[in-house]
Amino acid sequence: MFELGVVYRNIIRADREATDALASFGSATVHEAQGRVGLLNTYMRPIFPGTQISGTAVTVLLHPGDNWMLHVVAEQIKDGDIVVAALTSPNTDGFFGDLLATSFRARGARALIIDAGCRDVKTLQEMNFPVWSRAISSKGTVKETLGSVNIPVVCAGMLVQPGDAIVADDDGVVVVPKATVHKTLEVAKKREANEIEKRAKLATGILGLDMYKLRDSLADAGLRYID
Amino acid sequence: MFELGVVYRNIIRADREATDALASFGSATVHEAQGRVGLLNTYMRPIFPGTQISGTAVTVLLHPGDNWMLHVVAEQIKDGDIVVAALTSPNTDGFFGDLLATSFRARGARALIIDAGCRDVKTLQEMNFPVWSRAISSKGTVKETLGSVNIPVVCAGMLVQPGDAIVADDDGVVVVPKATVHKTLEVAKKREANEIEKRAKLATGILGLDMYKLRDSLADAGLRYID
Amino acid sequence: MFELGVVYRNIIRADREATDALASFGSATVHEAQGRVGLLNTYMRPIFPGTQISGTAVTVLLHPGDNWMLHVVAEQIKDGDIVVAALTSPNTDGFFGDLLATSFRARGARALIIDAGCRDVKTLQEMNFPVWSRAISSKGTVKETLGSVNIPVVCAGMLVQPGDAIVADDDGVVVVPKATVHKTLEVAKKREANEIEKRAKLATGILGLDMYKLRDSLADAGLRYID
Amino acid sequence: MFELGVVYRNIIRADREATDALASFGSATVHEAQGRVGLLNTYMRPIFPGTQISGTAVTVLLHPGDNWMLHVVAEQIKDGDIVVAALTSPNTDGFFGDLLATSFRARGARALIIDAGCRDVKTLQEMNFPVWSRAISSKGTVKETLGSVNIPVVCAGMLVQPGDAIVADDDGVVVVPKATVHKTLEVAKKREANEIEKRAKLATGILGLDMYKLRDSLADAGLRYID
Amino acid sequence: MFELGVVYRNIIRADREATDALASFGSATVHEAQGRVGLLNTYMRPIFPGTQISGTAVTVLLHPGDNWMLHVVAEQIKDGDIVVAALTSPNTDGFFGDLLATSFRARGARALIIDAGCRDVKTLQEMNFPVWSRAISSKGTVKETLGSVNIPVVCAGMLVQPGDAIVADDDGVVVVPKATVHKTLEVAKKREANEIEKRAKLATGILGLDMYKLRDSLADAGLRYID
Amino acid sequence: MFELGVVYRNIIRADREATDALASFGSATVHEAQGRVGLLNTYMRPIFPGTQISGTAVTVLLHPGDNWMLHVVAEQIKDGDIVVAALTSPNTDGFFGDLLATSFRARGARALIIDAGCRDVKTLQEMNFPVWSRAISSKGTVKETLGSVNIPVVCAGMLVQPGDAIVADDDGVVVVPKATVHKTLEVAKKREANEIEKRAKLATGILGLDMYKLRDSLADAGLRYID
Repeated sequence: MFELGVVYRNIIRADREATDALASFGSATVHEAQGRVGLLNTYMRPIFPGTQISGTAVTVLLHPGDNWMLHVVAEQIKDGDIVVAALTSPNTDGFFGDLLATSFRARGARALIIDAGCRDVKTLQEMNFPVWSRAISSKGTVKETLGSVNIPVVCAGMLVQPGDAIVADDDGVVVVPKATVHKTLEVAKKREANEIEKRAKLATGILGLDMYKLRDSLADAGLRYID
Repeated sequence: MFELGVVYRNIIRADREATDALASFGSATVHEAQGRVGLLNTYMRPIFPGTQISGTAVTVLLHPGDNWMLHVVAEQIKDGDIVVAALTSPNTDGFFGDLLATSFRARGARALIIDAGCRDVKTLQEMNFPVWSRAISSKGTVKETLGSVNIPVVCAGMLVQPGDAIVADDDGVVVVPKATVHKTLEVAKKREANEIEKRAKLATGILGLDMYKLRDSLADAGLRYID
Repeated sequence: MFELGVVYRNIIRADREATDALASFGSATVHEAQGRVGLLNTYMRPIFPGTQISGTAVTVLLHPGDNWMLHVVAEQIKDGDIVVAALTSPNTDGFFGDLLATSFRARGARALIIDAGCRDVKTLQEMNFPVWSRAISSKGTVKETLGSVNIPVVCAGMLVQPGDAIVADDDGVVVVPKATVHKTLEVAKKREANEIEKRAKLATGILGLDMYKLRDSLADAGLRYID
Repeated sequence: MFELGVVYRNIIRADREATDALASFGSATVHEAQGRVGLLNTYMRPIFPGTQISGTAVTVLLHPGDNWMLHVVAEQIKDGDIVVAALTSPNTDGFFGDLLATSFRARGARALIIDAGCRDVKTLQEMNFPVWSRAISSKGTVKETLGSVNIPVVCAGMLVQPGDAIVADDDGVVVVPKATVHKTLEVAKKREANEIEKRAKLATGILGLDMYKLRDSLADAGLRYID
Repeated sequence: MFELGVVYRNIIRADREATDALASFGSATVHEAQGRVGLLNTYMRPIFPGTQISGTAVTVLLHPGDNWMLHVVAEQIKDGDIVVAALTSPNTDGFFGDLLATSFRARGARALIIDAGCRDVKTLQEMNFPVWSRAISSKGTVKETLGSVNIPVVCAGMLVQPGDAIVADDDGVVVVPKATVHKTLEVAKKREANEIEKRAKLATGILGLDMYKLRDSLADAGLRYID
Repeated sequence: MFELGVVYRNIIRADREATDALASFGSATVHEAQGRVGLLNTYMRPIFPGTQISGTAVTVLLHPGDNWMLHVVAEQIKDGDIVVAALTSPNTDGFFGDLLATSFRARGARALIIDAGCRDVKTLQEMNFPVWSRAISSKGTVKETLGSVNIPVVCAGMLVQPGDAIVADDDGVVVVPKATVHKTLEVAKKREANEIEKRAKLATGILGLDMYKLRDSLADAGLRYID
């Protein structure tokens, strides 16, 4: 967040296979799997529902009302990347539309995560180019002030390092640091396996109170039942 | 809102037949029918559109980031209930997902109204388990601190007593105190009958000004027309 | 915003043909075409997605929780109008539902833009009557206090003069002053033509950096690339 | 919250002596003393700092932009009361100014808690009439629609019954149900006595880790120290 | 709000004597005197309390994060003016600090009203240069994009024409169109005279119910008293 | 933000002398000096005005409604430190009051920066222990869940590394990475010297337009003056 006017060209990306494998678990399971950290602020919402993806972050720091650096970051995109755009102060302008989406897709990007506004949402849905943003806005932007590309950024309240894995779906956007992608994937797999069995039990009417053995700890905490 | 660590097992529920009959009128008509009171804050939104339901409230008071009591309330659910979850201070974490939905449904719950966050929204839509919440969030919760079940709660700014009727649809969530469910249903029926006739008139181009005889009162209030 | 209790009957509307032609360009292109001004606050959202329209504004100033003047404005609607409703202080009540929509449509209105709440959203979608609002709310309103019709209003932070053109879609709501509708239309046409060609280039992987010739100005501003 | 157009004249107030004794402990200690419940939303702020009071609630339910019922509640005020004003939907208009403050004071009121706006704040500070509100606003209100006096209300997210004790200071506003005022007072006294001793220890540099014996539970939870 | 890149040098200001006379009445009385219109959004707060002023508006339209035009507007300030700064989209950066305040004061400005952020608040208080803003922020701004000076603007949701009168105090900021300054002043004077008498009555314990003769209309509306 | 349950005991702090020297320049000048980056969100406000400080960050990551780790961080405080507390999800509870302030001060802390609520604000002001927070709240917290101490955190939208310098005053809170404290101090000194001269010029009525030589660039951008 502190270095302006610089583009890092060579970043180390999270392992491709492990990163891609995270998508099927979704943001909630991945968030649990890494210990309930890494979630971007809940004001980040998909501009259309139904997408569940993962990818490696290329980061960009933007100034309010200025999308100059989105053209700079486009050149740094590789297949399987997700662009993560942070702002130097809160802003809801429409930094991104169908032209940039066309360019990003041509370069290999899977999605955009932007802590600002997006526009052309109908066309983006037709193109099936997913965006998670804090606002939708017709307001365009200028090209005047330098930010940076592939520095650590804070996007919607969460630290994202270039190359980190991103998992995004209708529940939100989660960051997985590249060093822990494999470990998080392992935990997510176990958790998921575990959940299938739990779901089957709960569907029969067995209570979480019994399945998780919560009654004793609740009693110890002093819970009283009154008829 | 003031009693912690207690579960009331035997609550008096609003009349089942009258409660169920409220669903077809929707939240706006029911809200009008009881004199324009009982609406939860408008930040409460359905996680997917198109559901219009009613049911009897079982209430639960939760602490921020702690869903322990959702397992306790599950045991108190009866067929036709809607769980109404209030918080002791504002929080947007994801207290509820597909596992708890499976459990709630198995116990007979029709929906969840929660003044906090929800997750697994795609799966919940596939299950067709409706939730009205203030946020969507991947962030899970702990199981550490006692709240209460079936005490009076304030959910999204509105008082809900255990057993009250709840009506919820795309327009919002309305509470009908159990003592006035029959009366509210009667008024709603009359209002609805009345509206069909009005709609037909307005569709022909007749103005509300004339149909509701507003011209005199507007003139009395001093309305001036300028050509 | 300063004259209460008055209805202007004869307003000059933006040219019909030019106004109608704006619809196909959408709010983002029109906003650009008039120099990035005229957008209402981004909290104004369509109650259902997928509509892209334009029309001429009839304006109405309302008080919080009071929809009396919506019946007054109905009489002033002509074919091709869009009702723009401003409030004297922030309010989210449900001022508008299916009855008023039936009336507005019968009078020729294409849509409602309201800086407050709307209800009966399911029915409105079935009727295909589009509304852009700041909230959805079951809460009805009284008919007690005079506002005004067809005075200049500030709706969601933007000045709207009676007769101005309105363009609205999933990206937001834009106002085009009636004096500049033709000019804005011309610029929008050129811009759109221009964009088709750009999109084709970007789709081949050509960068915005090269297509817009941004490399020199970025270098002049001091952008550094680090390998 | 559900009964409109009614004024309850005879309410049972919390014990005067115990209610008055709560003031010296302040809202934070009283909130702890009753088990961390009863706090109004933190958007409720004093219009001027430095007041710490308690009193018995007379309640009033108001409609947005309408202060008619503040004149009705004035007649129900007795010495030592605090007026608690709730709204039927969110609103920030200036319902209360120096004239009503003069009247409320003449009737014996100690303060106003209002989930809306207040005006004449400079004069109110000169009069030393404390108000906790969600907004400050010059905008006046009409007198058109009936609310109620001395019914249970939800003010800023918290249930207040007529006659409950209110404790308010720079930290916020807390409600103590009248049935538990004595018990809450006793707990508050013990807590306060306890705190004096703790403060002295902490001032010498003794850590809360040792004073509260937290080290074992932290280690049990798995806390690791890294040099 | 629609013309960019232009500075109107010759504006007609509201009558000086009448404008200056408005200050002593304050924003609440002036707001009432012109029929409860003209108040800026209540998020506009003084950066320090205790100032009550009036003056004539010179307006400026700014882009997010860009204070270039504040230097342009400085040249257009005359003795007794108040600068009213509007934004093209929401932004909280610190556009204004002690250097610009020194310049504005030297040119004759009495205050700044800005729908964005302000900084150097401690120094501004020492200088006694009053500012009403939506935020306080250390973040400086660039000088890159043209706005306009002395066009009609929407500032914090209210229309301000160049030359209009502004009244601001701890209750908020009110605009009085220049054409109605004399009339508003007359009404304010009468209202104020009237209030002194009312205050004296209320101080003796006479109720507003009786002084304003509200009992009959309340009974007509159906108010019921229950003992 | 990603490592839970860990306390780093040995952190490298920014140079003491340079860190301390930053205080006199204030947050706005320091923010400019490091290129307009490093400002925490503007919702962070001092609980009482008039303090201008700097210090070295010890960081702590907390869960909503849980202040356990504030006792853990207390042990890691050294003379001249400022505690920077981040949250895993948004929360406004009162994590910190006079007891913890007594302990923090005894350990050498100069202030607390917390992205949550604070209480006992009157006592904290009497003690002159400064806090910047997002809320004031009487609501206390539990001690149940592990966070971390001295890991990198995101506090109010800004990345803070343990040992970084913090500058805070009435304008806000700025972070200076420890590696650039000396450089930032040098730039701040030059900037300040420069400003004294500018202020003197502006006070004589010289315009920024002339002093900064802005007229040519404005003309180049197309600014038009209309008489």
